[in-house]
Amino acid sequence: MRFDLTAAKGGLDSKLREECGIAAIMGAPDAARQLYLLLFALQHRGQEGAGMVVFPAPEQGDNRHPRQLKDFGLVSEVFSRDVLERLAGESGVGHVRYSTTGGASKENIQPFLFRTSLGPVAIAHNGNLTNADTLRNDLENSGSVFQSTSDSEVFVHLIARSSKATLKEKIIDAVASVTGAFSLVIKSSDRIFALRDSCGLRPLSLASINGGYVVASETCAFDLIGASFIRDVEPGELVCLSESGIQSEFPWKPAARAFCAFEPIYFARPDSSFYGESIYMSRRRIGKILATECPADADIVVPIPDSGVAMAEGYAEASGIPFAMGLVRNHYVGRTFIQPGQDARDSSVRMKLNPVKSVLEGLRVVVVDDSLVRGTTAHRILKLIKEAGAKEIHLRIGSPPITHSCFYGVDTPDREGLMAAQITVEEMRRNLEVRSLGFLSIPGLSKALDERPGKTYCKACFSGQYPVAVGRTITSQPTDAAGPGLFSE
Amino acid sequence: MRFDLTAAKGGLDSKLREECGIAAIMGAPDAARQLYLLLFALQHRGQEGAGMVVFPAPEQGDNRHPRQLKDFGLVSEVFSRDVLERLAGESGVGHVRYSTTGGASKENIQPFLFRTSLGPVAIAHNGNLTNADTLRNDLENSGSVFQSTSDSEVFVHLIARSSKATLKEKIIDAVASVTGAFSLVIKSSDRIFALRDSCGLRPLSLASINGGYVVASETCAFDLIGASFIRDVEPGELVCLSESGIQSEFPWKPAARAFCAFEPIYFARPDSSFYGESIYMSRRRIGKILATECPADADIVVPIPDSGVAMAEGYAEASGIPFAMGLVRNHYVGRTFIQPGQDARDSSVRMKLNPVKSVLEGLRVVVVDDSLVRGTTAHRILKLIKEAGAKEIHLRIGSPPITHSCFYGVDTPDREGLMAAQITVEEMRRNLEVRSLGFLSIPGLSKALDERPGKTYCKACFSGQYPVAVGRTITSQPTDAAGPGLFSE
Amino acid sequence: MRFDLTAAKGGLDSKLREECGIAAIMGAPDAARQLYLLLFALQHRGQEGAGMVVFPAPEQGDNRHPRQLKDFGLVSEVFSRDVLERLAGESGVGHVRYSTTGGASKENIQPFLFRTSLGPVAIAHNGNLTNADTLRNDLENSGSVFQSTSDSEVFVHLIARSSKATLKEKIIDAVASVTGAFSLVIKSSDRIFALRDSCGLRPLSLASINGGYVVASETCAFDLIGASFIRDVEPGELVCLSESGIQSEFPWKPAARAFCAFEPIYFARPDSSFYGESIYMSRRRIGKILATECPADADIVVPIPDSGVAMAEGYAEASGIPFAMGLVRNHYVGRTFIQPGQDARDSSVRMKLNPVKSVLEGLRVVVVDDSLVRGTTAHRILKLIKEAGAKEIHLRIGSPPITHSCFYGVDTPDREGLMAAQITVEEMRRNLEVRSLGFLSIPGLSKALDERPGKTYCKACFSGQYPVAVGRTITSQPTDAAGPGLFSE
Amino acid sequence: MRFDLTAAKGGLDSKLREECGIAAIMGAPDAARQLYLLLFALQHRGQEGAGMVVFPAPEQGDNRHPRQLKDFGLVSEVFSRDVLERLAGESGVGHVRYSTTGGASKENIQPFLFRTSLGPVAIAHNGNLTNADTLRNDLENSGSVFQSTSDSEVFVHLIARSSKATLKEKIIDAVASVTGAFSLVIKSSDRIFALRDSCGLRPLSLASINGGYVVASETCAFDLIGASFIRDVEPGELVCLSESGIQSEFPWKPAARAFCAFEPIYFARPDSSFYGESIYMSRRRIGKILATECPADADIVVPIPDSGVAMAEGYAEASGIPFAMGLVRNHYVGRTFIQPGQDARDSSVRMKLNPVKSVLEGLRVVVVDDSLVRGTTAHRILKLIKEAGAKEIHLRIGSPPITHSCFYGVDTPDREGLMAAQITVEEMRRNLEVRSLGFLSIPGLSKALDERPGKTYCKACFSGQYPVAVGRTITSQPTDAAGPGLFSE
Repeated sequence: MRFDLTAAKGGLDSKLREECGIAAIMGAPDAARQLYLLLFALQHRGQEGAGMVVFPAPEQGDNRHPRQLKDFGLVSEVFSRDVLERLAGESGVGHVRYSTTGGASKENIQPFLFRTSLGPVAIAHNGNLTNADTLRNDLENSGSVFQSTSDSEVFVHLIARSSKATLKEKIIDAVASVTGAFSLVIKSSDRIFALRDSCGLRPLSLASINGGYVVASETCAFDLIGASFIRDVEPGELVCLSESGIQSEFPWKPAARAFCAFEPIYFARPDSSFYGESIYMSRRRIGKILATECPADADIVVPIPDSGVAMAEGYAEASGIPFAMGLVRNHYVGRTFIQPGQDARDSSVRMKLNPVKSVLEGLRVVVVDDSLVRGTTAHRILKLIKEAGAKEIHLRIGSPPITHSCFYGVDTPDREGLMAAQITVEEMRRNLEVRSLGFLSIPGLSKALDERPGKTYCKACFSGQYPVAVGRTITSQPTDAAGPGLFSE
Repeated sequence: MRFDLTAAKGGLDSKLREECGIAAIMGAPDAARQLYLLLFALQHRGQEGAGMVVFPAPEQGDNRHPRQLKDFGLVSEVFSRDVLERLAGESGVGHVRYSTTGGASKENIQPFLFRTSLGPVAIAHNGNLTNADTLRNDLENSGSVFQSTSDSEVFVHLIARSSKATLKEKIIDAVASVTGAFSLVIKSSDRIFALRDSCGLRPLSLASINGGYVVASETCAFDLIGASFIRDVEPGELVCLSESGIQSEFPWKPAARAFCAFEPIYFARPDSSFYGESIYMSRRRIGKILATECPADADIVVPIPDSGVAMAEGYAEASGIPFAMGLVRNHYVGRTFIQPGQDARDSSVRMKLNPVKSVLEGLRVVVVDDSLVRGTTAHRILKLIKEAGAKEIHLRIGSPPITHSCFYGVDTPDREGLMAAQITVEEMRRNLEVRSLGFLSIPGLSKALDERPGKTYCKACFSGQYPVAVGRTITSQPTDAAGPGLFSE
Repeated sequence: MRFDLTAAKGGLDSKLREECGIAAIMGAPDAARQLYLLLFALQHRGQEGAGMVVFPAPEQGDNRHPRQLKDFGLVSEVFSRDVLERLAGESGVGHVRYSTTGGASKENIQPFLFRTSLGPVAIAHNGNLTNADTLRNDLENSGSVFQSTSDSEVFVHLIARSSKATLKEKIIDAVASVTGAFSLVIKSSDRIFALRDSCGLRPLSLASINGGYVVASETCAFDLIGASFIRDVEPGELVCLSESGIQSEFPWKPAARAFCAFEPIYFARPDSSFYGESIYMSRRRIGKILATECPADADIVVPIPDSGVAMAEGYAEASGIPFAMGLVRNHYVGRTFIQPGQDARDSSVRMKLNPVKSVLEGLRVVVVDDSLVRGTTAHRILKLIKEAGAKEIHLRIGSPPITHSCFYGVDTPDREGLMAAQITVEEMRRNLEVRSLGFLSIPGLSKALDERPGKTYCKACFSGQYPVAVGRTITSQPTDAAGPGLFSE
Repeated sequence: MRFDLTAAKGGLDSKLREECGIAAIMGAPDAARQLYLLLFALQHRGQEGAGMVVFPAPEQGDNRHPRQLKDFGLVSEVFSRDVLERLAGESGVGHVRYSTTGGASKENIQPFLFRTSLGPVAIAHNGNLTNADTLRNDLENSGSVFQSTSDSEVFVHLIARSSKATLKEKIIDAVASVTGAFSLVIKSSDRIFALRDSCGLRPLSLASINGGYVVASETCAFDLIGASFIRDVEPGELVCLSESGIQSEFPWKPAARAFCAFEPIYFARPDSSFYGESIYMSRRRIGKILATECPADADIVVPIPDSGVAMAEGYAEASGIPFAMGLVRNHYVGRTFIQPGQDARDSSVRMKLNPVKSVLEGLRVVVVDDSLVRGTTAHRILKLIKEAGAKEIHLRIGSPPITHSCFYGVDTPDREGLMAAQITVEEMRRNLEVRSLGFLSIPGLSKALDERPGKTYCKACFSGQYPVAVGRTITSQPTDAAGPGLFSE
C-alpha cells in the first residue's frame, strides 16, 4: 500500500487542531478585561474567531441586558481597548474558535446568547457531539429556528425547550439527551454552570479570584489573571458557581474516564496542568521514554517547535546527546500569506521555520516532533534540515502512530489522510527519507502520562478503541499495518 | 548611588531597539513578492512601519513610474495580497522601521522615492547620522523642502543637490558630507547601489538569485527566498549592481572597522551570519564563555527567550547543568494591549512569558539573558520566576554591563536610564534581588565574537570608546562603577 | 396650553420616518445586482441598515444554501462591488431599515433567513404589529429562541411553529394570528410570497421583468431596473409568484382599506404611484387645493425641499404667484456630523439648506412644507429665511394638523411631542413667528388623493380614528385644540 | 463632419469639472471645525479628496507645529469627529480636490505644508498654471525634490527658493514667475495671504467672523459659519490678513479682468455671489434671455437638476409655460457604483435621475440644461424623457456652444471631444434627436451676467479668445461650424 505525500490534502498546516477554548468569570468588577486575558491565554486553542458575553452586576436587576461581541480574528483583533470599555460588566463567558480554511460563518462564533423565560443565558462549548444531527432535525421539525450551523446550538434549543422549572434542571434535562465530547460553561445573570461529559474528554478547570470564580479550558489562563487554581471540573460533574459558593452534583449516567491524550501531547500549553500533571513535565517524560524506546546514534537533538521542545529536552537529557534549537521560529507569522508560485511550498514552511545551518551542518541529527498526522509538514521541514547540511536524520515522534480519526472535537483527517493508517512505519521512514523513524509506544505514552485507575485517557486515535459511540460505522477496520516501534535504514 | 527600578522609564519593553532593516532586489520578475518575503524575514528589525518601492522592468523605458506603498504596521498588515499584485515590477527597495511608543509620522516611513533629472530614485537607510541637524539646516536655508522629520531624508536632498553628472557620482558626493552610521540601498530604474559607512557599523549583505541580485540587512532574508549568499558589503564600500554585474569601489576616507557588537548579541536573528560568523554559534559561544567566567552552583539553566536561548544552551553544555525552557513565550503578543489596572504590570509581562511552575519549583535556577539595559523587564521576569517557586536565582548576562548610550542607531536610554552606568554590579544584584549576578567580560565578548584585525566591533556602549565622533559631548565621564565580573550574596 | 419649541425632543430631524422598504425578485440571472438597484431606489425609506438574501437557481437543488449580507449603512456602503459578486444567485429578498439615533443592534437588520423542514426561507417586513409583545411572550415561553428584538421576528417563529404541511399554509396560519400593519415578502428556494395586511396600510407592488417577477414597496424601484409594473398587491391579498405564474388568494378576514395617507404626502418618492395615483401629481394637487383653502397675498412661493417642491409648484400654479427655489439643498449631507457648539443648531440646518438671499430679500414669501410634526425644524428654517431678508412669511402645510400618534410603522412622537396635539393653529402661528399659517383640511386631503370607496386612506394621525385596534389606550383624548384652517396675524 | 455620441469618451459624467475649492481662517478658537464647515460648503467644487492644515495659536510660540490631515474622499469621510478634535488650533487652511476617474495619488491632495527658515507654511491652490512644466524642470534640475505630480507644488519650491527676506516678499517673488489661473491661500503661523492671478480667473472672497478672518472660494461658505462677507479678493491683489487687519497691494503686472464665466453658469452654488452678482439670479436671468432668444411652443418647462433649475424657472417665468420638476434626483448617489451589464448605461443615469411619467406623458416639453459638453449625458437623459412619454422635446442650453478647451483649471475635453467644436447646431439637434435645440448667444450671456468694463469674463471656451497665453498652440483653428442660435426640425 502506497501513501502519496504530495497528494495528501491539508497542505502546510497538517497539524491536528482542536475546536475551542472556553472561559467564564463571576464576581469580577472588570469582567471584560479579565475575559480578554483568559481568552488571550487560550488563544492557541482557536484562532478563527473569538467572542464574549458580559453580564452587568446582578444587583442591577434584570433591566440591564448582557452585551456581546463576536468576530473573526485573534482575541487581540476582536477586542480593542475601546470595545472592552463598552463591555462593562461583572461576569461573563468567552470563547475562542479554531481556524478552518473554508469561509466559516460569523453566526457560528460563540458564546451563544439567548433569552429564556428565566432571563438571558449565554453558553460556550468545547467539544464535538456525536448525535447532533438527529437532535437538530428533531428540534427543527418541531419549530425551533437555528441561527448557526454549529452543533453547539442544539444545547441552546434543548435548554429553551425543556419543560423543567429551573435553569439547572433545564440544563440537566438538555444534557441528558446529548452524547459526545463536551465541556460547557453556561452563564445566567447570577450564576455560572460548568460541566464536562461523563468521560471527561475535553478539559475544564476551576479557580478563585478575589471572592469570585473563574472557569477555563486550561490552567495557564488562571496564571495570567492571578487566579488561584482550585481543581479540575470532574468528568460527569455539574458545578454551579454562585454567591453561595461551589455546588457540585453528578446528575448523568457515569462512564469510564477518558481524557484526550492529545491535550498533553500537543494541544495544551506547557505551562498548563490537567489531572494534576504538568504538561511540560509530561512532555519531558515522553522525551525520556522515547530516548529509551527509540535510541539514536547521533550528534545533536533538535526539536520541531513548539510542542517538540520539551520532548527534545527530555530526549537529550536521557540520551546525553546535546540539545540545540536548530530551527528558528518566526514570531510574525500570524496573519501572513504567501502567494502561489514556483517555490511557494518551501517558502511557506520557511516563513515559519528556518534551519540554522551552522548548527546542523555535517551532523547526525535527532529531530523530535510531537506527532505525525498526514506527514506533509514533517516532510517539508525535514527537507529544509537536509538542505541545511544535516548528514543523517533520525526522526522521533513523541506519540504512537495515529491510525484512527477523532470524533470528539479534534480535527483529524479521514483514515485515508492518516499516514499511519495507510502504510507501515518502515514505509513511512522511506517516504519521509530519514535514516531512522521511531514512535513512542502506547504503553510508553501511558507511562509518561502516569495513567492509572481514575486517571485514564482516550487513546482512540492510536488504538481505535472509542470510549463513546461515535454515531457512525468506522469504515476501515483497525489495521496493524503501523505498529509502534523503531525502524532504521 | 541608588538606581530606582520602579522609576526607570521605558517600562515593560526595556529592551534595546535598532532603527531598521533594508532590502533591495533586481532582476526578479515578481519583485514585490520577493521584497515582501525579504522584509518579512527582517521584521524583527522594525515593527512600526514598512514600505516598498517597486520599479517596472527597465526595457519598459521611462514611461512607467515606480510604485510605492508605505504604512504603519507589520509587513503582513501593510502588504495584502491585493496590494502586492498591484505593485508589479522587476526590481525594488524595501524598509522596515522600528516601533516607537510616540505617535510617529507616516512621512517618516521609508523608502523615500524622489525624482531627479536622471529619473526616479528610491532610497532606504539603516543607521543614525551624527551631523544630520547641521546638514538639514543648511539644506533648508538654501531652499530644500523636507517632507519628513527623518534624518535619512538628508541623503535625498544631498543627492538631488549634487552638481555631479551621474547618479553614482552624486551618491559619492552626497555621502562624503555625512558622518555617522549608515547602510544604504539606493535604487534607480536599472541599478542598485549598496553602501556602508567606513566603520561598517550597520550590516548589509549581498546575494544572487536567478541572475538577479539581492541586498539585505541580514542573511536570513536570503534563505527565505532561496537566494545564494555572495558576501557582506564591506565597510566603506560602494557596490553598484547592474546587468553588467557587481562593481565595487571604496570612494570615501577609510576608517577602522567597527561592526555593532549588539547585532550578534541581540538584534540579529540566530539564523543570520555576519563577518562570516553564525549568530547562533556566536551566542552559544557567549554562553560557554559565560559559564567559565561566571559559574553557578545550580540545578537548571533557563533562558529568557528569545536571544537568551542559544546562550543558555551554551551555558548548559559548558557547565553540565540541565537546560529547560522554564518560561513559555506566548506567540500571539504582537498587537495586544493591556489595560491599566491593579495588576497590569505583572500581567503585561505574563502575557509574553509565563513560568512553568513544575520546572522551577524548589530548584536553584541559572537565568540567562542577553543584556541588561534599564533592568525593569528583568526585574519583573525574575519576580515571576521566584513566585513560581525557584529556590535561588543566578542571573547571567551574555554581554558586558552597558555603561554608555549608542549614537549610531540603537535606541538606548540616556546614561541616567542605564542601570550599569549608575550603580555597581553588587548594587545591581541587590536591586534585582538575585543570589548572584554575572556579566560576560569585554575580553570574553571579543573571544566569543572571534575579534581580530580586520574583524573588529564597536563596543562603545560597554567601553565608552566611540569609533565615530558623536557630535555632542558625552555628559557623564565613563565610570568604573560597574565593571564586569560576578557578584554573589 | 403652551408648547415649548426649544424643549421639543427630536432636534434637527423632526420629520416623520417610516420603518422600511422591502423588495424581492425571481427569475433574474443577476439577482444580487438587481436587488441592489431595487434597494437603492428605496433608500429614502430607510438609511440605518440594509440587507439581502440571495438564492441560487432552484435547478441547482437544495445543495446550495442562500447567502446573506446585512449591515448598518446605506445600500451603497453595505454592498460593494466585490460583495455583490460573491452573492451570486437567481432570486432573493432585500430590505432597507430606517435610521434611529440610538445604537440599534445588527441582529435587527432584515431580511431574516431561517431553515425549516421545507428548506430555507427568508422574510422581509415593512410595518408595525400591534400584538407583537403578546405573541413573542407566548413563543418564548414555549421554547422559541429569538435572535433579535425586532417585532418582525415573530413571523419567523410563527411560520416555523405552524403545524401545517406546506409553506403557503404555514404563512396563512402564522399571519392569521398577527394584527397591525404589515407588507411582507417571503422567499423560499422557488417561490416569492407577497402579502399585505387586510387594511393595506403599507404599500407593496408587483412587476415583471424578462419572464421573472419583482416585488417592491414602491414603483420607482421598477423603473430603475426596467421592470414592467403589473399592479399593487391588494390589501389582504396573498400573492404567490412561481414559475407557474401569479396565484392570488384572500385567506384572511377582510377589512376596510386604509392605505397610509403619509405615503403620498411625504414618504414616497414623487416618481412612484400607489392606488394608480402618481405621487408627484397628488402633491401638486395638494398644492393647488392648499392655494384655494389658504390663499396668501405674497410675492413668491418657496418650497422646503424635497416633498414641498411639487406642492409649492401646485400652489404657485393655482395662485399665480411665481415659484422659486429659495432654499439650496446640499447634496453631501449624507453622513456628515456637526460638533456641539455655540451655533451648532443653526449650522446643522444650514448644512442641509441655505437660503438664497437674492431670492428672498424684501419679499413676502409663501413657504410650503409637507407637514408639521414637532415644529422644531420648521422653526429653524423659517428663522434662516427671515435672516435672509424675507419681509413676511406665510407658512402653508400640505397636510392637516397631526394630532395623533401612529401605531402602524410611522415613527411619530407621543402626543406630547406633536405640536398640533398641544396647541391651537393660532398658537402655532405665534410660536413659529409667521405672518400667517395655513393647513390643508382633511376633506381637502381626501379630494387631492381622490379618495372614494375602495380607495380609502388611513388618516388616523389627523383624525384619531384608528382602522386597526392599537393594543393600548390612547392616553390623551382627541382634542379639537388644533382644527384645520388658516390663521393670520 | 460626424460626431459619434456613443464613441465620445467621458461616459456618464460628461459634465465639466473644476479643480478645487480653497478656504482659510484665522482668529477662530475652533479653527478645525470651522474649516470643516467651510470645506463642506465647497464640497461641490471637488469630491476626490480633502485636506486641512491647522495651526496652533501664535502666542503658543513656535513650539507647536501645525497639524495636517489629507485623504481621498468627501469632507465628511476624511474628517470624523475624532479627527477634528485632534486637529485643535486657532487658524488654518483647507482644500477640496475634484474627482478624477484615474487613480490619483495621495501626495497630490492639498494643502501642502512645508518648513521654511521663517517657520511652517501651508498653501492651497485653485486653478491651473500654463508654465508649470518649465518651472518644474528648472527647479528639479537645480535640486528641488518634488513630492507630488501636482502643478501647485511649484509654488512651494519657488517660495522656499526665493532669496527675499520676508514671507510676503518671497510670495511676490514666487508668483511673479508663474502664469495661468490661480487663487491661492498661504498660511504662516500668524498670517493668511490670499491672492488671485491678475485676470482673476478663479474666485476668492473675504469675510470676517468674531474679530477673525475667513477666505473662501465661494461666499456660500461664509453663510454656513455665520461669517460676514467683506468683499472679493481683487484680480492681481495680494491680501495679507493679520492681527493688524487687512493689508492690500497689487504687486504684479496688471491684466484685463477675466473671471471664468462657467462659475455662474455651472460650478458655483446658486447661493453664492461673485462680482456682486447672485448666482441664482444670474441663472434665472439666463433662463429669461434664453426664452426670448430661443422660444418654444410647448406645454411644460422641465430642468435637468441642479444647475438647470434656476434657468428653467426663468424660462418658465418669461415664457409663461408652467414649470415642473419632471426629473427626480436621487440624493444617495454619492458613492454608488453600477456593475457593467446589458442595461448599465441606462440604469446609471436612472440612478441619478428618474423621469416622472405623470408629468411628462403626452406633453411638449422644454428641457433646460446649463451646458452641453460631449453630449453623452444629455443624450441619455433625453432618451429617458422620451421613454416616459414626452411628445416633443425642445432642448434649451443656458450657455453658448463650447468650441474650445479650457487651460485655466476646468477639466474640458480636447476639441475632438467637444460636440460643438465638431458639428453644427443642426447636426447636434439631429444627433440628440430633439424637435428643436437652442443655445444662449454670447451677447445674451454677457447681458445675463451684466458684463461691463471692470466686470469682464473669460469666455474663451465659447470664443477661443484666451486672456492668458496657454503655453501651447491651439491645434484646431476656431470653427464657426457651431454658431449660437435655434434650430428646429
